[in-house]
Amino acid sequence: MYRIAIVGGTGYTGVELLRLLARHPRVAVVCVTSRQAAGRPVAEVFPSLRGQLDLAYVAPDEAPLAEMDLVFFATPNGTAMREAPALLEAGVRVVDLAADFRLRDPAEWERWYGMPHACPELLAEAAYGLPELFREEIRAARLVANPGCYPTAVALGLVPLLEAGVADPTRLVADAKSGVSGAGRRAREDLLLGEAAESVRAYAVAGHRHHPEIVQTLARFAEGPVGLTFVPHLMPMIRGIHATLYAELRAPETDLQALYEARYAGEPFVDVMPAGAHPETRSTRGANVCRIAVHRAPRGDQVVVLSVIDNLVKGAAGQAVQNMNLMLGLPETVGLEQPALLP
Amino acid sequence: MYRIAIVGGTGYTGVELLRLLARHPRVAVVCVTSRQAAGRPVAEVFPSLRGQLDLAYVAPDEAPLAEMDLVFFATPNGTAMREAPALLEAGVRVVDLAADFRLRDPAEWERWYGMPHACPELLAEAAYGLPELFREEIRAARLVANPGCYPTAVALGLVPLLEAGVADPTRLVADAKSGVSGAGRRAREDLLLGEAAESVRAYAVAGHRHHPEIVQTLARFAEGPVGLTFVPHLMPMIRGIHATLYAELRAPETDLQALYEARYAGEPFVDVMPAGAHPETRSTRGANVCRIAVHRAPRGDQVVVLSVIDNLVKGAAGQAVQNMNLMLGLPETVGLEQPALLP
Amino acid sequence: MYRIAIVGGTGYTGVELLRLLARHPRVAVVCVTSRQAAGRPVAEVFPSLRGQLDLAYVAPDEAPLAEMDLVFFATPNGTAMREAPALLEAGVRVVDLAADFRLRDPAEWERWYGMPHACPELLAEAAYGLPELFREEIRAARLVANPGCYPTAVALGLVPLLEAGVADPTRLVADAKSGVSGAGRRAREDLLLGEAAESVRAYAVAGHRHHPEIVQTLARFAEGPVGLTFVPHLMPMIRGIHATLYAELRAPETDLQALYEARYAGEPFVDVMPAGAHPETRSTRGANVCRIAVHRAPRGDQVVVLSVIDNLVKGAAGQAVQNMNLMLGLPETVGLEQPALLP
Amino acid sequence: MYRIAIVGGTGYTGVELLRLLARHPRVAVVCVTSRQAAGRPVAEVFPSLRGQLDLAYVAPDEAPLAEMDLVFFATPNGTAMREAPALLEAGVRVVDLAADFRLRDPAEWERWYGMPHACPELLAEAAYGLPELFREEIRAARLVANPGCYPTAVALGLVPLLEAGVADPTRLVADAKSGVSGAGRRAREDLLLGEAAESVRAYAVAGHRHHPEIVQTLARFAEGPVGLTFVPHLMPMIRGIHATLYAELRAPETDLQALYEARYAGEPFVDVMPAGAHPETRSTRGANVCRIAVHRAPRGDQVVVLSVIDNLVKGAAGQAVQNMNLMLGLPETVGLEQPALLP
Repeated sequence: MYRIAIVGGTGYTGVELLRLLARHPRVAVVCVTSRQAAGRPVAEVFPSLRGQLDLAYVAPDEAPLAEMDLVFFATPNGTAMREAPALLEAGVRVVDLAADFRLRDPAEWERWYGMPHACPELLAEAAYGLPELFREEIRAARLVANPGCYPTAVALGLVPLLEAGVADPTRLVADAKSGVSGAGRRAREDLLLGEAAESVRAYAVAGHRHHPEIVQTLARFAEGPVGLTFVPHLMPMIRGIHATLYAELRAPETDLQALYEARYAGEPFVDVMPAGAHPETRSTRGANVCRIAVHRAPRGDQVVVLSVIDNLVKGAAGQAVQNMNLMLGLPETVGLEQPALLP
Repeated sequence: MYRIAIVGGTGYTGVELLRLLARHPRVAVVCVTSRQAAGRPVAEVFPSLRGQLDLAYVAPDEAPLAEMDLVFFATPNGTAMREAPALLEAGVRVVDLAADFRLRDPAEWERWYGMPHACPELLAEAAYGLPELFREEIRAARLVANPGCYPTAVALGLVPLLEAGVADPTRLVADAKSGVSGAGRRAREDLLLGEAAESVRAYAVAGHRHHPEIVQTLARFAEGPVGLTFVPHLMPMIRGIHATLYAELRAPETDLQALYEARYAGEPFVDVMPAGAHPETRSTRGANVCRIAVHRAPRGDQVVVLSVIDNLVKGAAGQAVQNMNLMLGLPETVGLEQPALLP
Repeated sequence: MYRIAIVGGTGYTGVELLRLLARHPRVAVVCVTSRQAAGRPVAEVFPSLRGQLDLAYVAPDEAPLAEMDLVFFATPNGTAMREAPALLEAGVRVVDLAADFRLRDPAEWERWYGMPHACPELLAEAAYGLPELFREEIRAARLVANPGCYPTAVALGLVPLLEAGVADPTRLVADAKSGVSGAGRRAREDLLLGEAAESVRAYAVAGHRHHPEIVQTLARFAEGPVGLTFVPHLMPMIRGIHATLYAELRAPETDLQALYEARYAGEPFVDVMPAGAHPETRSTRGANVCRIAVHRAPRGDQVVVLSVIDNLVKGAAGQAVQNMNLMLGLPETVGLEQPALLP
Repeated sequence: MYRIAIVGGTGYTGVELLRLLARHPRVAVVCVTSRQAAGRPVAEVFPSLRGQLDLAYVAPDEAPLAEMDLVFFATPNGTAMREAPALLEAGVRVVDLAADFRLRDPAEWERWYGMPHACPELLAEAAYGLPELFREEIRAARLVANPGCYPTAVALGLVPLLEAGVADPTRLVADAKSGVSGAGRRAREDLLLGEAAESVRAYAVAGHRHHPEIVQTLARFAEGPVGLTFVPHLMPMIRGIHATLYAELRAPETDLQALYEARYAGEPFVDVMPAGAHPETRSTRGANVCRIAVHRAPRGDQVVVLSVIDNLVKGAAGQAVQNMNLMLGLPETVGLEQPALLP
């Protein structure tokens, strides 16, 4: 059994890691840290884990992280970049579920995250943890930047078009809809059930941190510069992302269904739906899967891609476990086989 | 007091008409029809109206519709077109909340609604009931086609751009999100709370009946042909439409905020939000208002318009009352002044 | 027009007062206070009120409260008791929507609210603002304690039984279910949509502040001591309280339906439903009404009363307006006639 | 691998059986029947199972049920009683998730289910599938009646009190709250999201089919007759039951916490929460567990038990798998170890 620690285990990505790893047959979570919950049993904070985990939170300073095989950071942005270097030095693999290692350019990172980067020299080394796009880099990596939830849904949906050169990379639109758990478990007035239920709204139209992350990924597959308009929306639900992606076709005769099926053939966690399908976010609830449907709009020269994930699983903790499996040389799907919870 | 009848009073648009008209000071609902509820008090079917209305449903055949000043059809598509001609003949004004008179071209109507039109000669006469665009036609009309909910939100959001010629009319995208009440009150498995809650999905990507209706309206304001991609989505909530509209700017230097404020200056039911705002659908819940925010995307040459309504009010019954007010020569806002219900 | 102020206008009861009073024909809100929002237009904080109110928040210290005809306190517990004495002295009527004047016994108040009472001498004078039970006291009062939401639903449901002496007052059970808006608009982690949606839980089984308030009211109608078990539950919805009330019948032959209909005959805001009915909370959404159904349990000697309200209207702001109407000598129903919003 | 069939695989209990059994290591679902979906792949009807199950529905008449080791009936009431006798004759074990074998008394069954029982002779033989109460009977049974969802939550919550003789069995109250999936996947107008969201209502106060089932179970543990008032309520959520149970203590000095902990010591699927806890239904979402908290009401001589389950798991399919495990001699927990999905 590999020894695993989770730094920051009281947020949504932390508890989702705990849920997934509690039944993982090849690794054992031996340490979970939390500043404010130190000393309390995990199952007291999350009664859903009663009988599943016999661990208490430890204070970050008292956690024997250097003795781990792999450490997950499920912390706010800016934490992992301060602690990862020493762990890597000690031979510990690191997966960061926050944004610290997602952008290659430190200046860009500082611009979007409002602080200077603590270890810019690691940015080039970190693998971007989207296995369907960068599997071999991840397998070889000591440090993996787990992608954002929106970037996962958007990149998996658009890359086949760009890679094949059949769509105009300069006129892309990603209209994305997310459940509220994507905003984390902090007490925010605008995320109260009384405020966020029975309503829909866009946010950050003028610019969102996931925009440069998405563009950076798309640019690796596109010929020429990428022009993307990205508008995220808050949905009155807990989990799920639905990305509706619009692109102009350069090669209108392309068999889009065949293109997507070929691109993701053999991928265990990307499901290309039959032609004409409209995937529901709930079909991914709790499961590490991205379901994609590709449509030609009535306008003919435009393609509409529908890409859905559970933001906490394929969009966060599930993908992190998938990356862990690759980094540890385990079968990629182990611990991630459970079907979605429907209804 | 004007004498008003509602044909088909057990669906969502019917009960919303009843809610709004119950307190309207200048008209009286004297007749509500329903085939299956005939004989039952309205307040038995809708306990929310107990103490508000002392009416029972009557069978359609027994309703003295020809004695009314105005008749609303809150019926399935295909009903109003069979009954409106005789009423108009009798001097009764008609507002159809279904789609029977929305499309000018009978062939187009037949294609989308799957039946031949019963009175194609009236299609040219019917006014399209979007007062902010066609007020004078409505004022003069005997017959008004009340717009669809999506077309209301999309047209009010896009027309200022097209009218001013500042956006490319051939590359429009409307990504629309609707609460489930837009689908009516019929028992459908996919609209059960157990199926539709905690999930988001697109539908009808290949073509939706509101597409030709929107295009027909936009074409009256655009120079040249209109190319629109329209993707509706189902949201896990009861009421509300959020239309996110994307257009390419031809005149990037345009002051978009000023354009919208000027276009809707003095309009009581269109609210142009301050620059940078993100309107929430709940800010329109129960109220006859469309709130619009206009943003320039980071890409610069693209505009993103956010347009929200309550699909049952400005998207249906409220707009129908607004049309009625105009047709009867009443102040346009009478009976429609209540603020939205928030939270 | 009477001049009205609202102290504390950014919470749920504050904005609900604003919604109701915006259209009230006999009073004008001329002042709304808020410490943190001072200087901001009300309609900026609550876009649902755009076009309805042209007021900005003022700091509490700058509000000319002594010039008002009536002041509402929509503040946290402990505020009104410090400010009401001076206002009463100045001849201003006061309605407190918090708990400061609800309990007659200052020791009991201190026990439940954790602070000594600032003006215990006013506790005996304050009228308890449940008009259906204490109308004449309210009409004559300078100071009204607006009841809690649970106490409103429970007391209206149980009083007819106790008053008539047909139920055992020592073995009452009130199982109450509330939407989250009852907990106010403060950022609390457990009320996030991500935490409170798709779940139900009881809370405060060991003791809730509304328990002594309910018992105090019931005791005024019961012969002998009152024994009540009260268990509140949090529902995954915004508005609404459903109180399910259980009592043991002393007089099993009683015609319960007739008893309730007689008790509330002529009451504009209490609706006794037909025998066998199961009222839905949504039938009261946005409306100042309590709907009640009374059932005999199969066990025969037990009665089950179902009592539903909108916690923000008949359970808070609507009842406060009803009290204001009585205190100012206005018709009791003015400004409160709007039907519920359904669906 | 044991060979398993599911009769009626398109409803909520059917799909939940499929979800649980898809990953069960000791049994294989080799046949799923459906009249209306015959011929269609299961994963087409339930995309959440894409990649998990390679089965198509077969028509009931063509299903080789007699070759199975065990057959689940996830059918409407009245189906299993017609088909079970022949299967039992053929040596096949049967678990009925409907109500056909839950009541011992055929007259009572006919009264509540509105049809004569097709095989009353089997009623005495059928084991009632609540393993924590009747484990040995289930282990030995050919035929198991899987309990109703409400009866599971209520019986597990009340039995310890009755068994120990510390509560009055004649004055029990069960106030139960259920998500809408308890009503099944049929298209019913009152279960539309537009009707059932944002609202709470009681139903069947005059009598519910689960009442006799609960009383029958409680009577096996109580001394003397059982008097129970049972009021079910519909909650605006998909999954979950919260039963709030009220009983009068005969022995007020009892250590209730110790009583419950002792009663369920070693039970893998009943979790007695720490003293003072308020279990949330979501802490059981997707998991085969009943969480119970026991409280003494302020009234002192009354106990309040909070009992929560996922109605589709411990209240239906999960419990059915638990019963299957016992009947086949497998470890009771196999295939049921997954933690709940939170948030």
